[in-house]
Amino acid sequence: MAAKEKTLEDLFLMGLKDIYYAEKQILRALPKMAKAAESDELRQAFETHREETEGQVERLEQVFELLGKRAQGKTCEAIQGIIEEGKEIMEDFADSEALDAGLLAAAQSVEHYEISRYGTLRTWAQELGMQDAAKLLEETLEEEKKTDQLLTQLAEARVNRKAAA
Amino acid sequence: MAAKEKTLEDLFLMGLKDIYYAEKQILRALPKMAKAAESDELRQAFETHREETEGQVERLEQVFELLGKRAQGKTCEAIQGIIEEGKEIMEDFADSEALDAGLLAAAQSVEHYEISRYGTLRTWAQELGMQDAAKLLEETLEEEKKTDQLLTQLAEARVNRKAAA
Repeated sequence: MAAKEKTLEDLFLMGLKDIYYAEKQILRALPKMAKAAESDELRQAFETHREETEGQVERLEQVFELLGKRAQGKTCEAIQGIIEEGKEIMEDFADSEALDAGLLAAAQSVEHYEISRYGTLRTWAQELGMQDAAKLLEETLEEEKKTDQLLTQLAEARVNRKAAA
Repeated sequence: MAAKEKTLEDLFLMGLKDIYYAEKQILRALPKMAKAAESDELRQAFETHREETEGQVERLEQVFELLGKRAQGKTCEAIQGIIEEGKEIMEDFADSEALDAGLLAAAQSVEHYEISRYGTLRTWAQELGMQDAAKLLEETLEEEKKTDQLLTQLAEARVNRKAAA
């Protein structure tokens, strides 16, 4: 198919495959991040988010079904780069006082990547008139935003503890 | 230096180098995105953001100075991946009806990466008691959030035009 004949539906399907691959990578990264975390709260946040991510993968599979397409991932270089940076932090800052701060930063980059992708996919679903798909994507978008807010709270609590010390 | 001796200041410096490299890559990508954009509004948004990005690079240089360190980039695989995905969209969807939608998505991923990084760096600067640095990083964070909101408005305007057509 020539580039100029491509449609928004093609772009939507490409975006779905991208985030489906990304979610699978995130599912694999979260247990490692939970294991590395020093604080109980951060470990708990990663474990909870892993469970949520399983539900998000299922929602994506429902959206593929609504499109009449097979659920399929497509290598997403962005999430690979983001997760790679997280791994570097886990290695470079192992057992250091800054490890949890670094893990929080890595997790927030992941969340923001997802927020941008789900926001875009939700808008495209609306543009394509696919209201059911838009609703599923919106649900996940709201979960990702909540997770990001929780991580922000954990990061700010560190600052406040330091200020009080 | 052993990993366990590393401090939050080391992490902060690493994060600064990462986003400094990222901003330089973004400065190079934005003119290509502006040239590719179909709509005048989107082209204008990219051009305006390129000018803003120059100011953001200068602010980062001031933060390096406050730390007493030389401004220096460090390869950021995350931004490389995000920009690479944007390039693929520009190629795969050249001259198609979905090109601008794809460009908007790529730009919003870039913005969200920056929002997460600047949010983190601002919080670390506060934790380190570096109020001047925190202020500079906060200014850029607010600019990035505004740019993301503008891009969201442009994306929603597409949906509304389609609904009215």
